[in-house]
Amino acid sequence: MVRFAILGCGRIGRMHARHIRAHPRADLVVCYDVAGAAALETAAETGAVVADSAADAIGHHEVDAVFIASSTDTHVDLLTLAARAGKPVLCEKPIDLDLARVDACWEDIGRLAPLIVLGFNRRFDPSFRSLRERLLAGEIGRLEQAVITSRDPAPPPVSYVQGSGGLFRDMTIHDFDMARYLAGDIVEVQAMGANLVDPAIGAAGDIDAAMILLRAASGALVHINNSRRCAYGYDQRIEAFGKKGMLQAQNRHLTTVEAWTATATGVRDPVQDFFITRYAEAYWAELDHFVDCVENGTRPIAGFAEGRESLRLADAALQSMHEGRAVRI
Amino acid sequence: MVRFAILGCGRIGRMHARHIRAHPRADLVVCYDVAGAAALETAAETGAVVADSAADAIGHHEVDAVFIASSTDTHVDLLTLAARAGKPVLCEKPIDLDLARVDACWEDIGRLAPLIVLGFNRRFDPSFRSLRERLLAGEIGRLEQAVITSRDPAPPPVSYVQGSGGLFRDMTIHDFDMARYLAGDIVEVQAMGANLVDPAIGAAGDIDAAMILLRAASGALVHINNSRRCAYGYDQRIEAFGKKGMLQAQNRHLTTVEAWTATATGVRDPVQDFFITRYAEAYWAELDHFVDCVENGTRPIAGFAEGRESLRLADAALQSMHEGRAVRI
Amino acid sequence: MVRFAILGCGRIGRMHARHIRAHPRADLVVCYDVAGAAALETAAETGAVVADSAADAIGHHEVDAVFIASSTDTHVDLLTLAARAGKPVLCEKPIDLDLARVDACWEDIGRLAPLIVLGFNRRFDPSFRSLRERLLAGEIGRLEQAVITSRDPAPPPVSYVQGSGGLFRDMTIHDFDMARYLAGDIVEVQAMGANLVDPAIGAAGDIDAAMILLRAASGALVHINNSRRCAYGYDQRIEAFGKKGMLQAQNRHLTTVEAWTATATGVRDPVQDFFITRYAEAYWAELDHFVDCVENGTRPIAGFAEGRESLRLADAALQSMHEGRAVRI
Amino acid sequence: MVRFAILGCGRIGRMHARHIRAHPRADLVVCYDVAGAAALETAAETGAVVADSAADAIGHHEVDAVFIASSTDTHVDLLTLAARAGKPVLCEKPIDLDLARVDACWEDIGRLAPLIVLGFNRRFDPSFRSLRERLLAGEIGRLEQAVITSRDPAPPPVSYVQGSGGLFRDMTIHDFDMARYLAGDIVEVQAMGANLVDPAIGAAGDIDAAMILLRAASGALVHINNSRRCAYGYDQRIEAFGKKGMLQAQNRHLTTVEAWTATATGVRDPVQDFFITRYAEAYWAELDHFVDCVENGTRPIAGFAEGRESLRLADAALQSMHEGRAVRI
Repeated sequence: MVRFAILGCGRIGRMHARHIRAHPRADLVVCYDVAGAAALETAAETGAVVADSAADAIGHHEVDAVFIASSTDTHVDLLTLAARAGKPVLCEKPIDLDLARVDACWEDIGRLAPLIVLGFNRRFDPSFRSLRERLLAGEIGRLEQAVITSRDPAPPPVSYVQGSGGLFRDMTIHDFDMARYLAGDIVEVQAMGANLVDPAIGAAGDIDAAMILLRAASGALVHINNSRRCAYGYDQRIEAFGKKGMLQAQNRHLTTVEAWTATATGVRDPVQDFFITRYAEAYWAELDHFVDCVENGTRPIAGFAEGRESLRLADAALQSMHEGRAVRI
Repeated sequence: MVRFAILGCGRIGRMHARHIRAHPRADLVVCYDVAGAAALETAAETGAVVADSAADAIGHHEVDAVFIASSTDTHVDLLTLAARAGKPVLCEKPIDLDLARVDACWEDIGRLAPLIVLGFNRRFDPSFRSLRERLLAGEIGRLEQAVITSRDPAPPPVSYVQGSGGLFRDMTIHDFDMARYLAGDIVEVQAMGANLVDPAIGAAGDIDAAMILLRAASGALVHINNSRRCAYGYDQRIEAFGKKGMLQAQNRHLTTVEAWTATATGVRDPVQDFFITRYAEAYWAELDHFVDCVENGTRPIAGFAEGRESLRLADAALQSMHEGRAVRI
Repeated sequence: MVRFAILGCGRIGRMHARHIRAHPRADLVVCYDVAGAAALETAAETGAVVADSAADAIGHHEVDAVFIASSTDTHVDLLTLAARAGKPVLCEKPIDLDLARVDACWEDIGRLAPLIVLGFNRRFDPSFRSLRERLLAGEIGRLEQAVITSRDPAPPPVSYVQGSGGLFRDMTIHDFDMARYLAGDIVEVQAMGANLVDPAIGAAGDIDAAMILLRAASGALVHINNSRRCAYGYDQRIEAFGKKGMLQAQNRHLTTVEAWTATATGVRDPVQDFFITRYAEAYWAELDHFVDCVENGTRPIAGFAEGRESLRLADAALQSMHEGRAVRI
Repeated sequence: MVRFAILGCGRIGRMHARHIRAHPRADLVVCYDVAGAAALETAAETGAVVADSAADAIGHHEVDAVFIASSTDTHVDLLTLAARAGKPVLCEKPIDLDLARVDACWEDIGRLAPLIVLGFNRRFDPSFRSLRERLLAGEIGRLEQAVITSRDPAPPPVSYVQGSGGLFRDMTIHDFDMARYLAGDIVEVQAMGANLVDPAIGAAGDIDAAMILLRAASGALVHINNSRRCAYGYDQRIEAFGKKGMLQAQNRHLTTVEAWTATATGVRDPVQDFFITRYAEAYWAELDHFVDCVENGTRPIAGFAEGRESLRLADAALQSMHEGRAVRI
């Protein structure tokens, strides 16, 4: 049984709190949020107690592990506190928006060899995971090309965009990690961005559509395409191509119903359009994996290094876009 | 909060017990099974107490509602006990294999107007439910034809078959209910059976493959096809056809992965092959519906009458098959 | 090179005339139609000459083979003329609407061992043919169940219905043949008909929707469903089920385009809705097969016997529907 | 009626010759090939006469139009001859491998305003054409992203590669044209190439896998991916994405058959793996369009300018790949 403190009781934190409570090998002991009301709500729903501070929550004597679901700017400090307390951490991505700060954090805590699982939820999606296992098992031969399609249902408000670190660090970071999950280390990045969705995002200095090329150390080529808005839902697909064929993970629909009418045939309902619903199974599997890591010493599927490398690719993509040239890693 | 007694702690009973425990508006108070060990296991897993008898479980002063998941031959007695105790019941299908006994049961308890939800789980499947709602909303006009495909992954042992009441009462009963769910009351039945899967089933006097035609009072025609064995999994599909088009509910796959190779393209993984996995969401929704019925007086989606009518159609199909003629209801 | 006379220059006759002209091993010599204008048009388009009578066309000294595409009531007489003239015949289905007349025809010409290919075009459809070849090759084991879906885009005028011999002889006859193509000889028929599409068809004494069950001598069960009207096009599907799995031949779309929007995903265009377009490749393959039969002595894929057996099944289905009982063949 | 000379009677030339013969408004008068035997074969099959030289064929007094299907290095000279003779030309792509030579050609013949249709066959594919028409009709709003997948079944021999002008000029040129067909003028190119398929191709100085990014003047982003080898056939897909949704043109299969077995479900047969079969309808439509241009003054769907622009994009992609930077057009 792993007893958790959860830091951050917003939308995603509350979901994780419910999962912890429902998990047969996990228990929620204490929760904390800078907004006290959010912590109280979570406590009321789960039976956890409310801590006075994040430090108190981490240090609580019954707490075995820490779940960091607070805002990005707090991650480094909380990771450091937890590492120093010798408590394993499951931390939402990203570690931070600033690579230097990420490296300084590791400088500080690396020697403690902390157990950190980073919340790259897509690695735990049953379909993406199955695709990768079949790829590694050689079903299509060595990977030659991958195409990662990742389009959000609707753009965030400009206020969010302004503090997000930009599309590459905020949204594409998942896709950079997915590229590494499939193709391994990346050695070259080319990026093209555009402001096609919301002029206000452009006015705020960011892009809302992008196409990226990556070259892996293995020789494989990877394409990522992003949009901040997608009419038909949350478009999340992967295509892997090799000598012996292709594997595709397609979008998920709510039902299996098809309609055939005078104007259209084979009509499915829209794809799931909310990340929490789309990746519900993945979030559960991520928690389950973390419990395994804590209880059985399982090696993390995504750790601190994965968080750092994705951020480095985001920075390289930004540089490539601004300088109009390929950036080597 | 609805506090349950569960009667029957076999495979399906244990699943229901877990659902009750996980449900935010339900609680499991007491469990009972003729096999004491099964009841002890369920109690250990859920925190329920073990009753000395089904009657004790039903009568337990903290119990608001009864979940009957015991063997078919006990259903009538337990339904009667619960009805007399004035406690709502969620009862696994079928009510009984003998229509006369079913009618006698209702004769006995009908005047008590008991709240009974019958476990026709397919009515709660998100895809079948969505298909029906769209049908009722007029998307394809009035229903003219329905095709119900229902093939089990593997035949049961002959010992099970012998006490099952035969294919129509044991397996097709779900499809008869689905036919009524889509097309309403049925007025004519034609059935053709065969022993194609396992000669031992034929030797035991039963069939293991069937095709059935139904005519609804509305005029709609319905076809059901059954097999006790299906190589590619648990084949559960529905097609509804009307003036304005067609709605189909297709099979469910574990992942969305497709493979494309030199010999085959668009290859999906096998469909789910275990009824508990295939209908996991449906079982959960069924429990949720029952809690709604108990707490809010919601009208049951499937009650005693639905159980009786499906059994009547099974009997009519058997008669049609034996006499080689259409049987009118 | 096979030189043809074509009898009947209506819509289907003109299509066949064009195919004959385009076929590298066929040539069109002469054409005839009771409506002289139709024959003149076909002659103008193809370079054939117009005969004064069907007998003259058949007897033309340059004619090697006869294509009968005239109205059903002329088929027996023209088949007889051609057989007596010792000329191979490709004849549109059905042979006749009256089984006694069909048998009398064979009584007359059978001893001449005429080469007759009957125009059961669906046997030549690339997808249905591939499905059957894979079935015969054992891919799914012995056939246990087949489901044949056959829905016309729009009902014919009542005037046509009145002379058509009824749904079973006019429309289902193709499906009876397809049942035999897949499952072999049929030994039992049960049929249920309804008037759901056009009340005028019911008033004329016919049905416009039907569901049929067949049992093959092999033990296989077959279901046919028919409708005279189908909103999404010409619905032509086959499902074959056996111990090792299932083969399905799906509908054909004009393009491979899919649309994904806010309200619907995976949307294909309507299926082909005109039998001449839907079965264009089949009609071509049928002609090609006939030329093979004439030139190389290839055994016909569908001959006189196939025409007779389908009609017999149509009669049996009619009897079953009227008497409300299974009819054994 | 348009009377053709055909220049080049190789594999693709013979196909075009057959189409010309079968087309109701076209006729084949004369053919020529540097390999006399090929010309004789085509003449024997089609009834055309064999010319002594390309010039004689073009100048033949009965010839209205010229079909250039000879090797790429002859295109400029033959285009020039035909233009000077005032005869419309349908010319296989590419115009030439050398942009300077292409421009010099136009310098020479542009003032003659010749009618030239360039054989970008994919523009005539029914599915790609339908996708584009629906895009232009506004079904998904303004184009924001396009993904063009184009993978050949098997790599050509190295001897061919050496004279091909490289992957971008030989193979991607079709995809550059498709990008322009969908997105209009292109203003920026980024390319990444690799040698993943056949080391001998790399040794010959070429690549056999590529990923490319394009930015259109409209703002749209386009991704092209290429491979010289594809296990599952000739992979030819298009995805267009805009504010209101997505249109996809999927691969084509030979039949509609699906197989469902214990190990795999929904299995389709391999996609068409030969360009002449895959694009048979497109080649026919291309000829039909050219006849329309000649007879009715229809504006060419693809002319000299389209050939030149695609070559320019190929050159830019080569430069981008070699210099590791974005190239602006």
